[in-house]
Amino acid sequence: MISDEEILKSKDVPGPTKEEIRCLVLCKARIKKNDYVVEVGCGTGAITIELAKKAGRIDAIDKNIKAINLTRKNLKKQGLLDRVNIIHGEATEVLKNLKNFDVMIVGGSGGKLQEILNIGSKKLTENGRIVITAILLETKVEAVHTLQNLGFKTEIIEVNISKGRILDRGTMMLANNPISIITGYLQ
Amino acid sequence: MISDEEILKSKDVPGPTKEEIRCLVLCKARIKKNDYVVEVGCGTGAITIELAKKAGRIDAIDKNIKAINLTRKNLKKQGLLDRVNIIHGEATEVLKNLKNFDVMIVGGSGGKLQEILNIGSKKLTENGRIVITAILLETKVEAVHTLQNLGFKTEIIEVNISKGRILDRGTMMLANNPISIITGYLQ
Amino acid sequence: MISDEEILKSKDVPGPTKEEIRCLVLCKARIKKNDYVVEVGCGTGAITIELAKKAGRIDAIDKNIKAINLTRKNLKKQGLLDRVNIIHGEATEVLKNLKNFDVMIVGGSGGKLQEILNIGSKKLTENGRIVITAILLETKVEAVHTLQNLGFKTEIIEVNISKGRILDRGTMMLANNPISIITGYLQ
Amino acid sequence: MISDEEILKSKDVPGPTKEEIRCLVLCKARIKKNDYVVEVGCGTGAITIELAKKAGRIDAIDKNIKAINLTRKNLKKQGLLDRVNIIHGEATEVLKNLKNFDVMIVGGSGGKLQEILNIGSKKLTENGRIVITAILLETKVEAVHTLQNLGFKTEIIEVNISKGRILDRGTMMLANNPISIITGYLQ
Repeated sequence: MISDEEILKSKDVPGPTKEEIRCLVLCKARIKKNDYVVEVGCGTGAITIELAKKAGRIDAIDKNIKAINLTRKNLKKQGLLDRVNIIHGEATEVLKNLKNFDVMIVGGSGGKLQEILNIGSKKLTENGRIVITAILLETKVEAVHTLQNLGFKTEIIEVNISKGRILDRGTMMLANNPISIITGYLQ
Repeated sequence: MISDEEILKSKDVPGPTKEEIRCLVLCKARIKKNDYVVEVGCGTGAITIELAKKAGRIDAIDKNIKAINLTRKNLKKQGLLDRVNIIHGEATEVLKNLKNFDVMIVGGSGGKLQEILNIGSKKLTENGRIVITAILLETKVEAVHTLQNLGFKTEIIEVNISKGRILDRGTMMLANNPISIITGYLQ
Repeated sequence: MISDEEILKSKDVPGPTKEEIRCLVLCKARIKKNDYVVEVGCGTGAITIELAKKAGRIDAIDKNIKAINLTRKNLKKQGLLDRVNIIHGEATEVLKNLKNFDVMIVGGSGGKLQEILNIGSKKLTENGRIVITAILLETKVEAVHTLQNLGFKTEIIEVNISKGRILDRGTMMLANNPISIITGYLQ
Repeated sequence: MISDEEILKSKDVPGPTKEEIRCLVLCKARIKKNDYVVEVGCGTGAITIELAKKAGRIDAIDKNIKAINLTRKNLKKQGLLDRVNIIHGEATEVLKNLKNFDVMIVGGSGGKLQEILNIGSKKLTENGRIVITAILLETKVEAVHTLQNLGFKTEIIEVNISKGRILDRGTMMLANNPISIITGYLQ
């Protein structure tokens, strides 16, 4: 897992997803070497980088051209550009044209989470997994309920992490904003 | 409890203590109408304001003249200036000259927590209470151990609060940094 | 604020609301001496006790007869029974027959939160406040959106508190489950 | 990462370390395929299992014979027993006889953290890492300071995770106790 500081940022692209959340997303996704992984809303490419080191095939989708460009830059910086198919487009359209995949990771859904989960869930291979990160209360509820309705074994964790700033006078803990990770496993 | 926005700030003075922490400090201190309360490290005066509404006599101490001035301004803004004795000085010195008090609240200790607790604890009336807020890991441990050694019934809570920003697209939770509140009750 | 240990419990009644949450609910409700406060879902009576010490008139409602009995016992134990009108019934019915009140506190809503807020909000005096505690994700979202739609200045905080167990070998922090406190202020 | 439920437990052995914490420990340890990893205080073997899947050589040490037996059982259950050297003994003694290693993970230190870190740090290869999990406030501070004094690039995170129980009436979040993960990187 690379550190947050190594990831190029942009004020026009949300993120990057913090190291610990990237780590937990990868664990929950149970990525195996030959997995075909689709990432919806790749943003800065922070998670894409980690997928590129572990999975077999990766498609990274974003509708924001600035996110696409930033993901490309970050992958290039890490020498991983040739490991990922970067796709600029609306996930609800792009997903329809993909072959079946093993894992879908949703980092951003632009208000179309339900549609993305509906379409994506139909494209999952046996033992497929969907992992969603959510910062909005409403998205957390929507993710849990949609996965439940689609028949997934559904899990939600809420993650509150603070990180120490080690000063001369002592160790001050600085909080990251809480994030939920919602996972659906095909049973 | 006034809102965080009502409190005047300064970049030279740490704080103000957030509304929820002020609320919990006041609860833990079990302030009664006639209590004589001494506040060490009044900072912006955020807690002082609440003490001024509830306690009988309040002495607010800070060694930072900018904190003293800011506390005065904040009390004045709330119409509570005449309710508080504001004392500029080193707490370890000031405490020695005070009469016995019912409650000591320590918002800042400038690296002298142990000495402040030693002196302060000797000035407590029967059923006296000491409440300490701590953001440094080291201070949390020091506060617990010193109160224990001084024979107090000691309690520590760690508080992680996030606050919603209600946007058109949903409710985003933003984290405050974790703070511990350590309380000693004379048994 | 009395300690959690002082409150009588029952396995048939959820709660009691932990000390720190009671403290924050009372702060958010901005209880004044002459306020008429209505509590929906009083449960063990843990919050009722604190209201009884601070407000002018208190009506505590619960549809669960075991909660009603437990609230009565807890108030009696604290010598506060004559300070509260305890009402056994469905809040959506009971509220309709009450005069206008200053504060409504909702500790439990039995799946009827929206209706309770709709009815309650019409009974609020000028500067009225509604405070809701929520442990379910779905209730948090519903509370925020209903208060927003009813025109309240709406606030939500998520509270994660852990409490130290001070052992010989050190201080172990034990987590309480996260709770949200949602507040609506009439503007 | 296997789920918490798959891990055999015992009331005589603390743990198992929860899935999310195991995941974060592995990430922070930056385990590579040929790494030689030493685990001090293997407890239930929950982390040992994950090390056994990723590292080159693993030595798991515990002074509690019941922990040793449980670690053996859990490794056997996962078909990983031949991947780990299980060593019953006092870490401060055992460590001295080991060759240099790449990673040391400290899950339990029996009050000898400083000594373990002193000895372990001298056995680390270039780019070596030490990862400590701590539940006691005092251990958190001791871990940070000892690693700092030994010249490590030191990091501390505090992890508060709650997990959803998805019920008919909604999603209730249940908190795990907070844990700190302290990491030292040789610079």
